[in-house]
Amino acid sequence: MPSRFALLALLVLISTSLLAQEREYYVASPHRNLPFSSGVLVGDTLYIAGHLGLDPQTGKPPSDAEVEARLVMDAIKKVVEKFDMTMDDIVMIEVHCTDLDLYGTFNKVYRTYFQGAFPARAFLGSAMLLRDARFEVLGIAVKKKLP
Amino acid sequence: MPSRFALLALLVLISTSLLAQEREYYVASPHRNLPFSSGVLVGDTLYIAGHLGLDPQTGKPPSDAEVEARLVMDAIKKVVEKFDMTMDDIVMIEVHCTDLDLYGTFNKVYRTYFQGAFPARAFLGSAMLLRDARFEVLGIAVKKKLP
Amino acid sequence: MPSRFALLALLVLISTSLLAQEREYYVASPHRNLPFSSGVLVGDTLYIAGHLGLDPQTGKPPSDAEVEARLVMDAIKKVVEKFDMTMDDIVMIEVHCTDLDLYGTFNKVYRTYFQGAFPARAFLGSAMLLRDARFEVLGIAVKKKLP
Repeated sequence: MPSRFALLALLVLISTSLLAQEREYYVASPHRNLPFSSGVLVGDTLYIAGHLGLDPQTGKPPSDAEVEARLVMDAIKKVVEKFDMTMDDIVMIEVHCTDLDLYGTFNKVYRTYFQGAFPARAFLGSAMLLRDARFEVLGIAVKKKLP
Repeated sequence: MPSRFALLALLVLISTSLLAQEREYYVASPHRNLPFSSGVLVGDTLYIAGHLGLDPQTGKPPSDAEVEARLVMDAIKKVVEKFDMTMDDIVMIEVHCTDLDLYGTFNKVYRTYFQGAFPARAFLGSAMLLRDARFEVLGIAVKKKLP
Repeated sequence: MPSRFALLALLVLISTSLLAQEREYYVASPHRNLPFSSGVLVGDTLYIAGHLGLDPQTGKPPSDAEVEARLVMDAIKKVVEKFDMTMDDIVMIEVHCTDLDLYGTFNKVYRTYFQGAFPARAFLGSAMLLRDARFEVLGIAVKKKLP
Protein backbone atom coordinates (compact mmCIF):
# COMPACT_ATOMS: atom_id res chain seq x y z
CA MET A 1 0.00 0.00 0.00
CA PRO A 2 1.59 3.31 -1.00
CA SER A 3 1.85 6.03 1.58
CA ARG A 4 -0.15 9.20 1.21
CA PHE A 5 3.10 10.95 0.47
CA ALA A 6 3.76 8.72 -2.53
CA LEU A 7 0.24 9.27 -3.81
CA LEU A 8 0.63 12.98 -3.46
CA ALA A 9 4.00 13.03 -5.23
CA LEU A 10 2.53 11.09 -8.14
CA LEU A 11 -0.42 13.46 -8.31
CA VAL A 12 1.85 16.48 -8.45
CA LEU A 13 3.89 14.85 -11.20
CA ILE A 14 0.80 14.11 -13.26
CA SER A 15 -0.78 17.50 -12.73
CA THR A 16 2.41 19.22 -13.73
CA SER A 17 2.72 17.36 -17.00
CA LEU A 18 -0.95 17.96 -17.72
CA LEU A 19 -1.33 21.55 -16.76
CA ALA A 20 2.07 23.05 -17.37
CA GLN A 21 1.74 22.81 -21.12
CA GLU A 22 4.54 25.26 -21.73
CA ARG A 23 5.16 26.92 -25.07
CA GLU A 24 8.68 27.52 -26.25
CA TYR A 25 9.59 29.45 -29.38
CA TYR A 26 12.87 29.24 -31.21
CA VAL A 27 13.84 31.74 -33.91
CA ALA A 28 17.01 30.75 -35.77
CA SER A 29 17.69 34.16 -37.36
CA PRO A 30 16.14 36.81 -35.10
CA HIS A 31 18.07 39.60 -36.87
CA ARG A 32 16.12 38.90 -40.08
CA ASN A 33 12.93 39.86 -38.22
CA LEU A 34 10.71 37.51 -40.22
CA PRO A 35 7.20 36.71 -38.99
CA PHE A 36 7.68 33.09 -38.01
CA SER A 37 9.41 30.92 -35.46
CA SER A 38 11.71 28.14 -36.63
CA GLY A 39 10.10 25.81 -34.12
CA VAL A 40 7.31 25.97 -31.53
CA LEU A 41 7.08 23.45 -28.73
CA VAL A 42 3.74 23.06 -27.05
CA GLY A 43 3.52 20.34 -24.43
CA ASP A 44 5.49 17.47 -25.97
CA THR A 45 4.87 18.40 -29.58
CA LEU A 46 7.29 20.42 -31.67
CA TYR A 47 6.06 22.13 -34.83
CA ILE A 48 8.97 22.70 -37.19
CA ALA A 49 8.70 25.54 -39.72
CA GLY A 50 9.40 25.07 -43.42
CA HIS A 51 13.18 25.17 -43.91
CA LEU A 52 15.31 25.70 -47.00
CA GLY A 53 18.81 24.38 -47.65
CA LEU A 54 20.67 27.59 -48.40
CA ASP A 55 24.39 28.14 -48.63
CA PRO A 56 25.19 30.31 -45.58
CA GLN A 57 27.77 32.27 -47.64
CA THR A 58 25.47 33.24 -50.49
CA GLY A 59 21.99 32.88 -49.02
CA LYS A 60 21.16 30.89 -52.15
CA PRO A 61 20.70 27.19 -52.85
CA PRO A 62 24.03 25.51 -53.65
CA SER A 63 24.53 24.33 -57.22
CA ASP A 64 24.62 20.67 -56.09
CA ALA A 65 21.17 19.31 -55.18
CA GLU A 66 22.65 16.72 -52.84
CA VAL A 67 24.41 19.45 -50.86
CA GLU A 68 21.14 21.34 -50.72
CA ALA A 69 19.35 18.26 -49.35
CA ARG A 70 21.99 18.00 -46.66
CA LEU A 71 21.71 21.68 -45.77
CA VAL A 72 17.94 21.52 -45.42
CA MET A 73 18.09 18.41 -43.24
CA ASP A 74 20.83 20.01 -41.13
CA ALA A 75 18.52 22.98 -40.62
CA ILE A 76 15.72 20.68 -39.44
CA LYS A 77 18.15 18.83 -37.16
CA LYS A 78 19.30 22.08 -35.62
CA VAL A 79 15.73 22.98 -34.62
CA VAL A 80 15.04 19.51 -33.24
CA GLU A 81 18.23 19.54 -31.17
CA LYS A 82 17.51 23.06 -29.92
CA PHE A 83 14.57 21.46 -28.12
CA ASP A 84 16.66 18.58 -26.74
CA MET A 85 15.14 16.12 -29.18
CA THR A 86 16.65 13.88 -31.80
CA MET A 87 15.69 13.30 -35.42
CA ASP A 88 14.05 10.04 -34.33
CA ASP A 89 11.49 12.06 -32.37
CA ILE A 90 10.11 13.37 -35.67
CA VAL A 91 6.80 11.72 -36.51
CA MET A 92 5.76 13.56 -39.68
CA ILE A 93 7.67 15.28 -42.48
CA GLU A 94 6.55 17.17 -45.57
CA VAL A 95 9.07 17.61 -48.38
CA HIS A 96 8.12 20.11 -51.07
CA CYS A 97 10.34 19.75 -54.10
CA THR A 98 10.52 21.61 -57.40
CA ASP A 99 12.05 18.71 -59.34
CA LEU A 100 10.66 15.23 -58.75
CA ASP A 101 13.66 13.70 -60.52
CA LEU A 102 15.53 14.54 -57.31
CA TYR A 103 13.47 12.00 -55.33
CA GLY A 104 16.33 9.48 -55.21
CA THR A 105 18.98 12.09 -54.47
CA PHE A 106 16.93 13.48 -51.62
CA ASN A 107 16.14 10.05 -50.17
CA LYS A 108 19.80 9.03 -50.19
CA VAL A 109 20.68 12.01 -48.00
CA TYR A 110 17.47 11.87 -45.96
CA ARG A 111 17.84 8.34 -44.71
CA THR A 112 21.21 9.08 -43.11
CA TYR A 113 19.49 11.39 -40.60
CA PHE A 114 17.51 8.66 -38.85
CA GLN A 115 18.60 5.75 -36.67
CA GLY A 116 15.27 4.04 -36.08
CA ALA A 117 11.98 3.74 -37.92
CA PHE A 118 11.23 6.57 -40.35
CA PRO A 119 8.60 9.27 -39.77
CA ALA A 120 5.49 9.38 -41.91
CA ARG A 121 6.22 11.63 -44.89
CA ALA A 122 4.72 13.31 -47.92
CA PHE A 123 6.97 14.14 -50.87
CA LEU A 124 5.17 16.75 -52.91
CA GLY A 125 5.90 18.47 -56.17
CA SER A 126 5.94 22.27 -56.03
CA ALA A 127 5.97 24.74 -58.93
CA MET A 128 8.40 27.05 -57.13
CA LEU A 129 9.86 27.72 -53.70
CA LEU A 130 11.29 30.82 -52.03
CA ARG A 131 14.84 31.78 -53.03
CA ASP A 132 14.69 29.30 -55.92
CA ALA A 133 15.20 26.45 -53.49
CA ARG A 134 14.71 22.89 -54.72
CA PHE A 135 13.49 21.59 -51.34
CA GLU A 136 11.44 22.92 -48.48
CA VAL A 137 11.00 20.64 -45.48
CA LEU A 138 8.69 20.98 -42.48
CA GLY A 139 7.57 18.58 -39.80
CA ILE A 140 6.27 17.60 -36.40
CA ALA A 141 8.26 15.92 -33.62
CA VAL A 142 7.04 14.52 -30.32
CA LYS A 143 9.34 14.34 -27.32
CA LYS A 144 9.84 10.83 -26.09
CA LYS A 145 8.88 10.39 -22.47
CA LEU A 146 10.79 8.40 -19.86
CA PRO A 147 13.89 8.02 -22.04
CA MET B 1 -1.26 16.97 4.25
CA PRO B 2 -4.17 17.36 1.86
CA SER B 3 -7.47 15.84 2.81
CA ARG B 4 -8.82 12.90 0.92
CA PHE B 5 -11.44 15.20 -0.49
CA ALA B 6 -8.79 17.43 -2.03
CA LEU B 7 -7.00 14.42 -3.50
CA LEU B 8 -10.22 13.16 -4.96
CA ALA B 9 -11.12 16.53 -6.47
CA LEU B 10 -7.74 16.75 -8.14
CA LEU B 11 -8.13 13.23 -9.50
CA VAL B 12 -11.49 14.04 -11.00
CA LEU B 13 -10.09 17.17 -12.60
CA ILE B 14 -7.21 15.25 -14.11
CA SER B 15 -9.32 12.34 -15.31
CA THR B 16 -11.75 14.72 -16.93
CA SER B 17 -9.10 16.53 -18.91
CA LEU B 18 -7.57 13.21 -19.91
CA LEU B 19 -10.61 11.23 -20.82
CA ALA B 20 -13.09 13.80 -22.00
CA GLN B 21 -11.21 14.49 -25.18
CA GLU B 22 -14.18 16.11 -26.85
CA ARG B 23 -14.39 16.75 -30.56
CA GLU B 24 -16.02 19.90 -31.85
CA TYR B 25 -16.66 20.63 -35.52
CA TYR B 26 -17.27 24.05 -36.99
CA VAL B 27 -18.54 24.51 -40.53
CA ALA B 28 -18.45 28.16 -41.66
CA SER B 29 -20.76 27.74 -44.68
CA PRO B 30 -23.05 24.77 -43.97
CA HIS B 31 -25.39 25.74 -46.85
CA ARG B 32 -22.58 25.05 -49.34
CA ASN B 33 -22.61 21.43 -48.23
CA LEU B 34 -18.91 20.87 -48.88
CA PRO B 35 -17.17 17.81 -47.45
CA PHE B 36 -14.98 19.49 -44.86
CA SER B 37 -15.17 21.29 -41.57
CA SER B 38 -13.59 24.74 -41.25
CA GLY B 39 -12.08 23.68 -37.94
CA VAL B 40 -11.99 20.56 -35.78
CA LEU B 41 -11.09 20.73 -32.11
CA VAL B 42 -9.91 17.53 -30.47
CA GLY B 43 -8.75 17.84 -26.89
CA ASP B 44 -6.81 21.10 -26.84
CA THR B 45 -5.73 21.02 -30.47
CA LEU B 46 -7.59 22.83 -33.25
CA TYR B 47 -7.03 21.78 -36.86
CA ILE B 48 -7.85 24.68 -39.16
CA ALA B 49 -8.85 23.87 -42.75
CA GLY B 50 -7.29 25.56 -45.76
CA HIS B 51 -8.94 28.95 -46.19
CA LEU B 52 -9.06 31.34 -49.14
CA GLY B 53 -9.42 35.11 -49.03
CA LEU B 54 -12.46 35.64 -51.20
CA ASP B 55 -14.54 38.74 -51.63
CA PRO B 56 -17.88 37.85 -49.99
CA GLN B 57 -19.75 39.82 -52.71
CA THR B 58 -18.26 38.05 -55.71
CA GLY B 59 -16.93 34.77 -54.27
CA LYS B 60 -13.68 35.58 -56.07
CA PRO B 61 -10.31 36.87 -54.91
CA PRO B 62 -10.22 40.67 -54.78
CA SER B 63 -8.04 42.44 -57.35
CA ASP B 64 -5.71 43.73 -54.61
CA ALA B 65 -3.42 41.02 -53.19
CA GLU B 66 -3.08 42.84 -49.89
CA VAL B 67 -6.85 42.82 -49.44
CA GLU B 68 -6.84 39.12 -50.26
CA ALA B 69 -4.18 38.49 -47.59
CA ARG B 70 -6.34 40.29 -45.06
CA LEU B 71 -9.45 38.33 -46.08
CA VAL B 72 -7.69 34.99 -45.72
CA MET B 73 -6.25 35.88 -42.33
CA ASP B 74 -9.66 37.16 -41.21
CA ALA B 75 -11.10 33.78 -42.21
CA ILE B 76 -8.48 31.98 -40.10
CA LYS B 77 -9.14 34.34 -37.19
CA LYS B 78 -12.86 33.66 -37.39
CA VAL B 79 -12.29 29.92 -36.96
CA VAL B 80 -9.85 30.41 -34.11
CA GLU B 81 -12.24 32.72 -32.26
CA LYS B 82 -15.16 30.36 -32.85
CA PHE B 83 -13.30 27.99 -30.54
CA ASP B 84 -12.58 30.69 -27.93
CA MET B 85 -8.96 30.91 -28.91
CA THR B 86 -6.84 33.80 -30.12
CA MET B 87 -4.41 34.03 -33.03
CA ASP B 88 -1.56 33.66 -30.54
CA ASP B 89 -2.76 30.12 -29.82
CA ILE B 90 -1.75 29.14 -33.37
CA VAL B 91 1.45 27.08 -33.34
CA MET B 92 1.81 26.16 -37.01
CA ILE B 93 0.75 27.78 -40.27
CA GLU B 94 1.09 26.74 -43.91
CA VAL B 95 0.74 29.44 -46.55
CA HIS B 96 0.36 28.22 -50.12
CA CYS B 97 0.87 31.04 -52.58
CA THR B 98 0.71 31.21 -56.37
CA ASP B 99 3.08 34.19 -56.67
CA LEU B 100 6.18 34.25 -54.50
CA ASP B 101 6.69 37.94 -55.28
CA LEU B 102 3.82 38.50 -52.86
CA TYR B 103 5.93 37.25 -49.93
CA GLY B 104 6.53 40.76 -48.58
CA THR B 105 2.93 41.85 -49.15
CA PHE B 106 1.62 38.81 -47.32
CA ASN B 107 4.05 39.19 -44.42
CA LYS B 108 3.14 42.85 -43.92
CA VAL B 109 -0.50 41.88 -43.43
CA TYR B 110 0.26 38.64 -41.60
CA ARG B 111 2.31 40.12 -38.80
CA THR B 112 -0.51 42.41 -37.71
CA TYR B 113 -2.55 39.36 -36.63
CA PHE B 114 -0.23 38.31 -33.79
CA GLN B 115 0.61 39.97 -30.50
CA GLY B 116 3.25 37.58 -29.19
CA ALA B 117 5.81 35.23 -30.71
CA PHE B 118 4.95 33.98 -34.20
CA PRO B 119 3.85 30.42 -35.02
CA ALA B 120 6.15 28.13 -36.98
CA ARG B 121 5.27 28.56 -40.66
CA ALA B 122 5.93 27.25 -44.14
CA PHE B 123 5.48 29.60 -47.11
CA LEU B 124 5.14 27.42 -50.16
CA GLY B 125 4.81 28.12 -53.85
CA SER B 126 1.78 26.60 -55.54
CA ALA B 127 1.04 26.28 -59.26
CA MET B 128 -2.63 27.07 -58.73
CA LEU B 129 -5.28 27.28 -56.04
CA LEU B 130 -9.04 26.88 -56.06
CA ARG B 131 -11.05 29.89 -57.33
CA ASP B 132 -7.83 31.41 -58.70
CA ALA B 133 -6.88 32.46 -55.20
CA ARG B 134 -3.36 33.77 -54.59
CA PHE B 135 -3.21 32.44 -51.01
CA GLU B 136 -4.47 29.40 -49.15
CA VAL B 137 -3.73 29.25 -45.42
CA LEU B 138 -4.16 26.35 -42.99
CA GLY B 139 -2.89 25.73 -39.50
CA ILE B 140 -2.94 24.19 -36.06
CA ALA B 141 -3.72 25.97 -32.80
CA VAL B 142 -3.44 24.70 -29.25
CA LYS B 143 -5.62 26.09 -26.50
CA LYS B 144 -3.66 27.69 -23.69
CA LYS B 145 -4.38 26.12 -20.34
CA LEU B 146 -4.82 27.98 -17.07
CA PRO B 147 -5.10 31.39 -18.74
CA MET C 1 -15.53 8.10 0.04
CA PRO C 2 -13.45 6.03 -2.34
CA SER C 3 -11.14 3.45 -0.91
CA ARG C 4 -7.40 3.81 -1.21
CA PHE C 5 -7.49 0.94 -3.66
CA ALA C 6 -9.84 2.81 -5.98
CA LEU C 7 -7.68 5.92 -5.79
CA LEU C 8 -4.62 3.90 -6.58
CA ALA C 9 -6.25 2.15 -9.53
CA LEU C 10 -7.30 5.48 -10.99
CA LEU C 11 -3.79 6.84 -10.53
CA VAL C 12 -2.27 3.90 -12.34
CA LEU C 13 -4.75 4.31 -15.19
CA ILE C 14 -3.94 7.99 -15.52
CA SER C 15 -0.18 7.55 -15.27
CA THR C 16 -0.27 4.87 -17.90
CA SER C 17 -2.12 6.96 -20.41
CA LEU C 18 0.18 9.89 -19.66
CA LEU C 19 3.54 8.25 -19.54
CA ALA C 20 3.20 5.27 -21.81
CA GLN C 21 3.05 7.39 -24.90
CA GLU C 22 3.92 4.51 -27.19
CA ARG C 23 5.02 4.93 -30.76
CA GLU C 24 3.86 2.52 -33.42
CA TYR C 25 5.11 2.52 -36.98
CA TYR C 26 3.36 0.93 -39.93
CA VAL C 27 5.08 0.43 -43.26
CA ALA C 28 2.69 -0.73 -45.99
CA SER C 29 5.36 -1.89 -48.46
CA PRO C 30 8.46 -2.86 -46.46
CA HIS C 31 9.99 -4.64 -49.48
CA ARG C 32 10.25 -1.30 -51.30
CA ASN C 33 12.61 -0.11 -48.57
CA LEU C 34 11.57 3.54 -48.85
CA PRO C 35 12.53 6.00 -46.12
CA PHE C 36 9.12 6.65 -44.63
CA SER C 37 6.43 4.97 -42.60
CA SER C 38 2.87 4.88 -43.94
CA GLY C 39 1.60 5.85 -40.51
CA VAL C 40 3.09 6.71 -37.13
CA LEU C 41 0.99 6.60 -33.97
CA VAL C 42 2.26 8.54 -31.00
CA GLY C 43 -0.02 8.58 -27.98
CA ASP C 44 -3.49 8.97 -29.50
CA THR C 45 -2.42 10.80 -32.62
CA LEU C 46 -1.81 9.08 -35.94
CA TYR C 47 0.24 10.85 -38.60
CA ILE C 48 -0.66 9.48 -42.02
CA ALA C 49 1.95 9.76 -44.80
CA GLY C 50 1.16 11.15 -48.23
CA HIS C 51 -0.54 8.43 -50.25
CA LEU C 52 -1.11 8.02 -53.97
CA GLY C 53 -3.92 6.14 -55.69
CA LEU C 54 -1.98 3.75 -57.88
CA ASP C 55 -3.23 0.73 -59.77
CA PRO C 56 -1.66 -2.23 -57.93
CA GLN C 57 -1.17 -4.03 -61.26
CA THR C 58 0.74 -1.30 -63.04
CA GLY C 59 2.07 0.87 -60.21
CA LYS C 60 0.66 3.82 -62.13
CA PRO C 61 -2.41 6.02 -61.70
CA PRO C 62 -5.46 4.51 -63.41
CA SER C 63 -6.78 6.32 -66.48
CA ASP C 64 -10.02 7.18 -64.66
CA ALA C 65 -9.58 9.99 -62.10
CA GLU C 66 -12.55 8.78 -60.07
CA VAL C 67 -10.95 5.35 -59.72
CA GLU C 68 -7.74 7.06 -58.66
CA ALA C 69 -9.60 9.05 -55.99
CA ARG C 70 -11.05 5.81 -54.66
CA LEU C 71 -7.65 4.10 -54.63
CA VAL C 72 -6.02 6.93 -52.72
CA MET C 73 -8.81 7.05 -50.14
CA ASP C 74 -8.65 3.25 -49.81
CA ALA C 75 -4.94 3.59 -49.07
CA ILE C 76 -5.65 6.14 -46.34
CA LYS C 77 -8.38 3.92 -44.92
CA LYS C 78 -6.02 0.96 -44.81
CA VAL C 79 -3.57 2.90 -42.64
CA VAL C 80 -6.28 4.18 -40.33
CA GLU C 81 -7.72 0.70 -39.85
CA LYS C 82 -4.27 -0.76 -39.27
CA PHE C 83 -4.27 1.30 -36.08
CA ASP C 84 -7.78 0.20 -35.09
CA MET C 85 -9.27 3.53 -36.00
CA THR C 86 -12.00 4.53 -38.42
CA MET C 87 -12.10 7.25 -41.07
CA ASP C 88 -14.20 9.33 -38.67
CA ASP C 89 -11.18 9.57 -36.35
CA ILE C 90 -9.42 11.69 -38.98
CA VAL C 91 -9.32 15.35 -37.94
CA MET C 92 -7.25 16.91 -40.73
CA ILE C 93 -6.66 16.07 -44.38
CA GLU C 94 -4.50 17.64 -47.08
CA VAL C 95 -5.33 16.84 -50.69
CA HIS C 96 -2.70 17.84 -53.25
CA CYS C 97 -4.11 17.72 -56.75
CA THR C 98 -2.58 18.39 -60.16
CA ASP C 99 -5.87 19.33 -61.82
CA LEU C 100 -8.29 21.53 -59.92
CA ASP C 101 -11.06 20.68 -62.36
CA LEU C 102 -11.17 17.35 -60.52
CA TYR C 103 -12.41 19.02 -57.32
CA GLY C 104 -15.97 17.80 -57.83
CA THR C 105 -14.91 14.32 -58.89
CA PHE C 106 -12.69 13.97 -55.84
CA ASN C 107 -15.34 15.29 -53.45
CA LYS C 108 -17.96 12.87 -54.76
CA VAL C 109 -15.72 9.94 -53.90
CA TYR C 110 -14.30 11.51 -50.74
CA ARG C 111 -17.59 12.06 -48.97
CA THR C 112 -18.51 8.39 -49.13
CA TYR C 113 -15.63 7.57 -46.76
CA PHE C 114 -17.09 9.39 -43.75
CA GLN C 115 -20.15 8.68 -41.62
CA GLY C 116 -20.08 11.68 -39.30
CA ALA C 117 -18.80 15.25 -39.49
CA PHE C 118 -15.97 15.84 -41.97
CA PRO C 119 -12.36 16.50 -41.00
CA ALA C 120 -10.82 19.90 -41.60
CA ARG C 121 -9.21 19.83 -45.05
CA ALA C 122 -7.05 21.76 -47.47
CA PHE C 123 -7.44 21.09 -51.20
CA LEU C 124 -4.29 22.40 -52.85
CA GLY C 125 -3.16 22.66 -56.43
CA SER C 126 0.16 21.02 -57.20
CA ALA C 127 2.30 21.38 -60.32
CA MET C 128 3.21 17.69 -60.28
CA LEU C 129 3.16 14.63 -58.05
CA LEU C 130 5.26 11.47 -57.90
CA ARG C 131 4.40 8.80 -60.49
CA ASP C 132 2.26 11.32 -62.39
CA ALA C 133 -0.45 10.91 -59.81
CA ARG C 134 -3.37 13.34 -59.85
CA PHE C 135 -3.93 13.18 -56.08
CA GLU C 136 -1.75 12.86 -53.01
CA VAL C 137 -3.53 12.71 -49.67
CA LEU C 138 -2.11 12.94 -46.15
CA GLY C 139 -3.68 13.50 -42.76
CA ILE C 140 -3.88 13.30 -39.01
CA ALA C 141 -6.26 11.10 -37.01
CA VAL C 142 -6.89 11.04 -33.27
CA LYS C 143 -8.08 7.89 -31.56
CA LYS C 144 -11.39 8.34 -29.84
CA LYS C 145 -11.26 7.53 -26.14
CA LEU C 146 -13.87 5.62 -24.16
CA PRO C 147 -15.47 4.15 -27.30
